[in-house]
Amino acid sequence: MTGPKARIRREAARLWAAKGYHATGVQELADATGLGKGALYHHIGSKEQLLFEISVEGVAVLIAGAEEVLAMPIPAAERLRLLSRRLMRNISDDLAEWKVFFHEVNTLTGANRRTVLELRERYEGQWCRLLDEGARSGELRPADRIAVKGILGMHNYSYLWLREGGRLDPEELADVFVDLLLGGLALDLPIDR
Amino acid sequence: MTGPKARIRREAARLWAAKGYHATGVQELADATGLGKGALYHHIGSKEQLLFEISVEGVAVLIAGAEEVLAMPIPAAERLRLLSRRLMRNISDDLAEWKVFFHEVNTLTGANRRTVLELRERYEGQWCRLLDEGARSGELRPADRIAVKGILGMHNYSYLWLREGGRLDPEELADVFVDLLLGGLALDLPIDR
Repeated sequence: MTGPKARIRREAARLWAAKGYHATGVQELADATGLGKGALYHHIGSKEQLLFEISVEGVAVLIAGAEEVLAMPIPAAERLRLLSRRLMRNISDDLAEWKVFFHEVNTLTGANRRTVLELRERYEGQWCRLLDEGARSGELRPADRIAVKGILGMHNYSYLWLREGGRLDPEELADVFVDLLLGGLALDLPIDR
Repeated sequence: MTGPKARIRREAARLWAAKGYHATGVQELADATGLGKGALYHHIGSKEQLLFEISVEGVAVLIAGAEEVLAMPIPAAERLRLLSRRLMRNISDDLAEWKVFFHEVNTLTGANRRTVLELRERYEGQWCRLLDEGARSGELRPADRIAVKGILGMHNYSYLWLREGGRLDPEELADVFVDLLLGGLALDLPIDR
C-alpha cells in the first residue's frame, strides 16, 4: 500500500510506538505528516479508525501469508518453519506497528475491537490447524491450544527485544525457535513418553 | 510488602495498565488511593520513581526465586519446570504490574532505566545459566541465547492473554510450555541430530 494513507499509518505507528496512543495528539500527527489537521482527518476519519486500520492490516497480511504456507504440499515441520519465518520477518519489518498493536488493541471499541480480535483468533487458528494436521499425519506430537499460545508468544514477544542490525536476521531467529520447538531440549527422555 | 506504599503501587499499576502511564495524571492516582496529592508525593517521591519501584520489585522477586531454584540439587529439566512455574505464577498474580512493566520500561530514564534493564539481563542470565549447566551435564541440548529469549517470550507474552479464572492455573500453563520445550514437537527426527 502506498500514497498518503500508507505514509500517515507509518507516521502514526512511529509516534504512537514512541509516546503511546493516548499521549499523542492528532496535531502532532498532522505536524509529522506535513498535512493540515483538516486534510489529515479527511484521510483517516478518526484517530480510532487509524488505529483500527493499522491493526487490521498487520494481521491481514499474516493471515494471507499463512494461508499460502498451509496449502503447500510439504511436511508439517517445514510449513511450521515457513510460518515462523514469515511471522518474524513481519514483526521485524513493522516493529512500530506491532508495538502499537500489542499495546493498544484493547483501546479499540465495539465492532472495531471485535473485528481485530477475530482476525487474531483466525491467525492463531491457522497455527493450530497446521499442528493438528501434523499430529494427524503422525509427523508431530499433539499440541494443546496453550502450546500454540506459547509458540506465538515466543515469536510475538520479540517486538520488545528485536533491534535493527541484530546479529541474526529474522529468518535466522525463526530457525532458532523452530529447531527448539521441533527438537526439544531434553536429551534423556524416552521417545515414546 | 504492605502498608500505604504497597497500596499505592497496586493502584498505580491498575490505573496505568488500564489507561497507560502517560495518560494517567497523579491526581487520578491520588483519588484512587484516597490520599491527597501532597501525601501521595510524600510516599512516592515522583511518578517515575513509582514506575521504577514497581518495575524493580517485579524483577527482584523473580531473581530471588530463580536463585533458589538454580541451587536445588535436582535435574536441570526439573529446575526448568520450577523456573517456568514461578514465572507464570508471578505474571498471573501481578498482571497489571507486568503490563505496566512491558509497556513502560523504556519510559524510565537514566540510572533508573539502566538498573531495571540490568535486572532483566540478570534474570535472563539465570535461565541461560540453567540451560548451560544442563548442556554441560549432558541433560539438555545446548541452547542459543536467542532460544532463551524465545523461552522467556513464550512465558512473558502471556501478560496479553492470561485471564483470571482460565481453564488452567499458572502452574499447569507452565507445564504445557515445559513439556513442549523439553520434548519438542517432532516425532520423526533422528535422536542424535
